[in-house]
Amino acid sequence: MTHRGDTRAEPAAPVVISVDAMGGDRGPVAVVTGLSYCAQAHPDVRFLLHGPKEELDRLVARRKGLAGRVEVRHAEGVVSMADKPSQVMRNGQGTSMWSAIDAVREGAASVVVSCGNTGALMLLSMMRLRKLEGVNRPAIACFWPSRNPGGFNVMLDVGADVRADAADLVQYALMGASYARNGLGLAVPRVGLLNVGVEENKGRPELRAAHELMPEAARVGGFAYVGFVEGSDIPSARCDVIVTDGFTGNVALKTGEGTATLIREFLGEAFRATPLSRIAALLALTSLKRLQRRIDPRRQNGGVFLGLNGTVVKSHGSADATGVAAALELAVRLARSGFAERLAARVASAPAPGEDASGQEQAGGHDA
Amino acid sequence: MTHRGDTRAEPAAPVVISVDAMGGDRGPVAVVTGLSYCAQAHPDVRFLLHGPKEELDRLVARRKGLAGRVEVRHAEGVVSMADKPSQVMRNGQGTSMWSAIDAVREGAASVVVSCGNTGALMLLSMMRLRKLEGVNRPAIACFWPSRNPGGFNVMLDVGADVRADAADLVQYALMGASYARNGLGLAVPRVGLLNVGVEENKGRPELRAAHELMPEAARVGGFAYVGFVEGSDIPSARCDVIVTDGFTGNVALKTGEGTATLIREFLGEAFRATPLSRIAALLALTSLKRLQRRIDPRRQNGGVFLGLNGTVVKSHGSADATGVAAALELAVRLARSGFAERLAARVASAPAPGEDASGQEQAGGHDA
Repeated sequence: MTHRGDTRAEPAAPVVISVDAMGGDRGPVAVVTGLSYCAQAHPDVRFLLHGPKEELDRLVARRKGLAGRVEVRHAEGVVSMADKPSQVMRNGQGTSMWSAIDAVREGAASVVVSCGNTGALMLLSMMRLRKLEGVNRPAIACFWPSRNPGGFNVMLDVGADVRADAADLVQYALMGASYARNGLGLAVPRVGLLNVGVEENKGRPELRAAHELMPEAARVGGFAYVGFVEGSDIPSARCDVIVTDGFTGNVALKTGEGTATLIREFLGEAFRATPLSRIAALLALTSLKRLQRRIDPRRQNGGVFLGLNGTVVKSHGSADATGVAAALELAVRLARSGFAERLAARVASAPAPGEDASGQEQAGGHDA
Repeated sequence: MTHRGDTRAEPAAPVVISVDAMGGDRGPVAVVTGLSYCAQAHPDVRFLLHGPKEELDRLVARRKGLAGRVEVRHAEGVVSMADKPSQVMRNGQGTSMWSAIDAVREGAASVVVSCGNTGALMLLSMMRLRKLEGVNRPAIACFWPSRNPGGFNVMLDVGADVRADAADLVQYALMGASYARNGLGLAVPRVGLLNVGVEENKGRPELRAAHELMPEAARVGGFAYVGFVEGSDIPSARCDVIVTDGFTGNVALKTGEGTATLIREFLGEAFRATPLSRIAALLALTSLKRLQRRIDPRRQNGGVFLGLNGTVVKSHGSADATGVAAALELAVRLARSGFAERLAARVASAPAPGEDASGQEQAGGHDA
């Protein structure tokens, strides 16, 4: 278990990101272009790029500044969006996704990024990287635009598993708090448990049980538990981390995205409605572009798989170069913070429900 | 069971709406003002208004055109937002909410509207109006802004019960289709089952079981089943009715509202950002107001309790006069369509899972 005194220090070793070039809706061109944006912003970062060598070498050669910083690892096969995860698990060796994950497994890179099939990526990651000791169900965490100073909240699980019992929800709180600490730079993240009301007697039995366990987990995990929160709190400043099961989280995420897209379209229609409003749109162009950026899902692209021996960033399948660059940016930030090691330490230090945690707390410390 | 040949005919008897004047965050002034808007739009509708007689008589006398059309029924007590539903059930007699519901129970009005405590309103409605025969769990349905030609979809359950098994979900589909037929005027509503993916093997066991039962329910219920839908489909044109359990529906509803509010605030900030954008806002005023109306939750105010012997419209607790008027408008539309009788006929005609429905189908007809 790595243990650092200074929580903000950057590790001396250069950061290496493992990138699956294939499997996204827009193919390897979008991935390599996004990679070149990220490489420009971070001259010290190196990349392992996985996919058909000849094609990728050609794409890499076309972009300035990538020479000597991108190593292409040949992989013939591609996991498609239609592939069944269980089949990929059995026959996926030789695909770019498998190769990208294995680079982290071998320690050649610290974070893997893929735009491919989510289910297959999760199953392969679980098989090749294994779950962290003490973790029952891994979770997918995402950023959500919010009124908080940093502009984002973290929500998990948004789709790794449709089930979650009280102990899983407590682990999500620990993992989510760790992620917010390293991904958003918050010292003491505030964690809320998603429910249909804020009263203690509301919701499903597993939520009420998790609610009972949270204060102790908060003490050990170094986060602040704010209690039950509602759907309207997800974009609010009431908390930094929203904990829920993968079914509810997935529906909420897609509902939020769908609502934002609908309003963006309505807004566009409103500005095309009359000649006067078209002039207005021109005048307000800068402000509207700023708004667009604030609610643009590509800018907060990247779900992160938590609870594995290694960090996996899942980019949207439909991500363009800007979206891929955002996912890579997140990967770099997490790699620099030594996130994987910190999370492992944190989870190991957390008590299982009912256990006495006083001894373990000192062993784990407060660094994740 | 009332049975009409012409599905669009208006009943000869005048429409009477029972209105709970108390319990909303803005008090009886907002309710009476909203009532006056609705009364102006519908000169043939009459109202029963429940609450402290002296105060309400004074408020009614102040608004033009209400004389002779509003009968105040005195009720001393008020159900507050903090009251526990179970206590209201035991001691709520003499409250305006109880009185408003009982007017429908007695047949003096056909729809009740209240801005009060949702949990108490649901429990009192179940106790005083009773569940429709064949209904296991009543549900709350709401309208959702969408890309459909009518501008709205229906979603249920959005919070009556956190649980729903496969049979409940099938009943929600029947009730929701009936509601869309009468509330949105759709002949053959398209119904989708909310899940985390559209593939058959996705989601929780009760969803896969309901998925199996839906084609038969659709045949009997006169709706089109489109299969699983995702959160992003809630505001889409893929279906007209979204079926889910009350936990997921409540989270989705509040997430959508929260996201819309956040974007509205960001939009306001964008237009106040620079002098140029402030001029632009002036030029685009009409278009922006139209947009505001399209995403204004007050305009689609009114959750409807389905599955009871009588129609209950729940207005937002924070509704202002415009919001109250929208809820009353919905109540008038449902009363005119003879919705309660149609829904009862429809549910009675539906088969329980596994039953043979061929005989019952002819008895129920296709009028709800």
